[in-house]
Amino acid sequence: MGTTMNRQWLLATRPKGMVKESDFRYQESPIPELSDGQFLVRVLYVAFEPAMRGWMEDRASYIPPIQLGEVMRAVCVGQVVESKHPSFQPGDCVTGGYGWQDYVVTNGRGGLMPTTPIPRDVPLTMPLSVLGITGLTAYFGMLDVGKPQAGETVVVSGAAGATGSVAGQIAKIKGCRVIGIAGGAQKCQWLTKEAHFDAVIDYKSEPVEKRLKELCPNGINIFFDNVGGDILDAALANLAPKARIVLCGGISRYNEEELPPGPKNYFALILQRARMEGFILIDYASRFGEAIPELAGWVASGQIKYQEDIQEGFENAPKVFLRLFEGKNIGKQLLKIADPPLARK
Amino acid sequence: MGTTMNRQWLLATRPKGMVKESDFRYQESPIPELSDGQFLVRVLYVAFEPAMRGWMEDRASYIPPIQLGEVMRAVCVGQVVESKHPSFQPGDCVTGGYGWQDYVVTNGRGGLMPTTPIPRDVPLTMPLSVLGITGLTAYFGMLDVGKPQAGETVVVSGAAGATGSVAGQIAKIKGCRVIGIAGGAQKCQWLTKEAHFDAVIDYKSEPVEKRLKELCPNGINIFFDNVGGDILDAALANLAPKARIVLCGGISRYNEEELPPGPKNYFALILQRARMEGFILIDYASRFGEAIPELAGWVASGQIKYQEDIQEGFENAPKVFLRLFEGKNIGKQLLKIADPPLARK
Repeated sequence: MGTTMNRQWLLATRPKGMVKESDFRYQESPIPELSDGQFLVRVLYVAFEPAMRGWMEDRASYIPPIQLGEVMRAVCVGQVVESKHPSFQPGDCVTGGYGWQDYVVTNGRGGLMPTTPIPRDVPLTMPLSVLGITGLTAYFGMLDVGKPQAGETVVVSGAAGATGSVAGQIAKIKGCRVIGIAGGAQKCQWLTKEAHFDAVIDYKSEPVEKRLKELCPNGINIFFDNVGGDILDAALANLAPKARIVLCGGISRYNEEELPPGPKNYFALILQRARMEGFILIDYASRFGEAIPELAGWVASGQIKYQEDIQEGFENAPKVFLRLFEGKNIGKQLLKIADPPLARK
Repeated sequence: MGTTMNRQWLLATRPKGMVKESDFRYQESPIPELSDGQFLVRVLYVAFEPAMRGWMEDRASYIPPIQLGEVMRAVCVGQVVESKHPSFQPGDCVTGGYGWQDYVVTNGRGGLMPTTPIPRDVPLTMPLSVLGITGLTAYFGMLDVGKPQAGETVVVSGAAGATGSVAGQIAKIKGCRVIGIAGGAQKCQWLTKEAHFDAVIDYKSEPVEKRLKELCPNGINIFFDNVGGDILDAALANLAPKARIVLCGGISRYNEEELPPGPKNYFALILQRARMEGFILIDYASRFGEAIPELAGWVASGQIKYQEDIQEGFENAPKVFLRLFEGKNIGKQLLKIADPPLARK
């Protein structure tokens, strides 16, 4: 089974301001024993989401906060290595909310996310990226909240991120003109060259509000926001009538110690009869089954390109998480912690 | 015709910060001559809306700005005193966008609002209050944007205002529990005693966010906002899942010289999967004909109570406008400038 110890990263302290490595604590535990109806999962890949920063805060939200001393919560891919559960056999590859650890014993239900088998022909990391939380967030956020119509102008912030890049490409599939906002030449180039965005704004070297005005002379019909802050205000200043702002996230806010100011241009929602709406992916759980095959089809046909940023080494988990807030990741941030110990079933 | 001069108030300067009397200039002009297809209206009542503050700014919006030296734009009630127009006869009472002046010559079309006849049995001020812009704004904002469902909790800011009070009572008619936020004991008392609001918060003497938490233990389903600022933030902090924030206005912002900060709690829109949406009444013009009879029916049955604050004297127009921003008006702010000179037809 690779190791005989279960390495774990726990939440050590509630972060103040920017999350740091010392907010986590490393420990080694024995590998837990199985009871009837349970199975043992060897974790292979850990996925990192900006939203995890919110789960570390001690406040009621759409899911309970991570407790101090609790294993860091995360969606993972793993392989079943022992089983006393009729539906899961050693060798099965699975995805679920296993957390930052080598091993977990589970009955397959409960927690962040129930265990779901991964079909044999699906690459192991895909259920963590384009066919997982991030792809599904892009899918329901763009289609259900944004409701793109052919010919509309769509702007995506955090456009080179795992969710933003898929959201923009879905809008392209629906016939929209799509403009991405991202930081740095490498990300911007990927968006126009590979992901076929119509235009891109590099917020690190260009004035976003001015560029939006130039690129969207008739205004923005849909703004899909992963960032908040000044970028949200720049979009509000350039809305088309009846615009929809899809609030997906606000990575500029997550590590602020004090609540930052809100969007000073929110009054544009009145002047443009526009709407700003948030959503949470878990509300759409009953419809994942319709979304995943459609996303998989778009990936297979080349209409959706995606990137994964796969780091290695369990010991690096906190460092890898920080990459999200440093803007270092290109595409979905993953951490590989092991190869499958058994032949894949 | 009462006077032989046309008294007028013009926009003299673009206001900086709080609007003041010196932003307006008084002048007297000759009463204009009629051409074929036109009629002469004697203005009787002028209506004042907080939105007029926005029309005084030099920026593109849903209607063009008032030009310097132009008569202040306003919705008014008047009486036709001379006519070369086949559809309007001397004695007809009418409503339209006549402005701050004694007389206007018009063909009945164009401008802020086309001329509409007032049926003989309708009190002259009603087309400026509960059956006019403010009642219609409450009607479409609450019903079309807010979409109240029986049993929901609805909070209205600026609740004793002409729009807020009607919006709250429409939510009551639809079976909601309605809480008003208003300033001062007199306004609050009217809301619970006369307008049958379920509860009221006096923002001048009570902590709004804390009181909302107490009064809305399951959160706010609809927040109908006329105020913005801290009151909007207090509501955002107390949203129910799937809440709707109807952005009707933001009177706390209109006289700020610098753009004030936005709602720092806007991220609650994500956590509560909520939506914040603005609207502009003129978009609903084709449906006024369905709304006015329904509003009139609710007034006749006593389900909607309304108040008018009728000041007198044309010379007082700027002072009366300022009452809106001083929180002095109780109900719709009107200015009476003349009695009908002819028998009403």
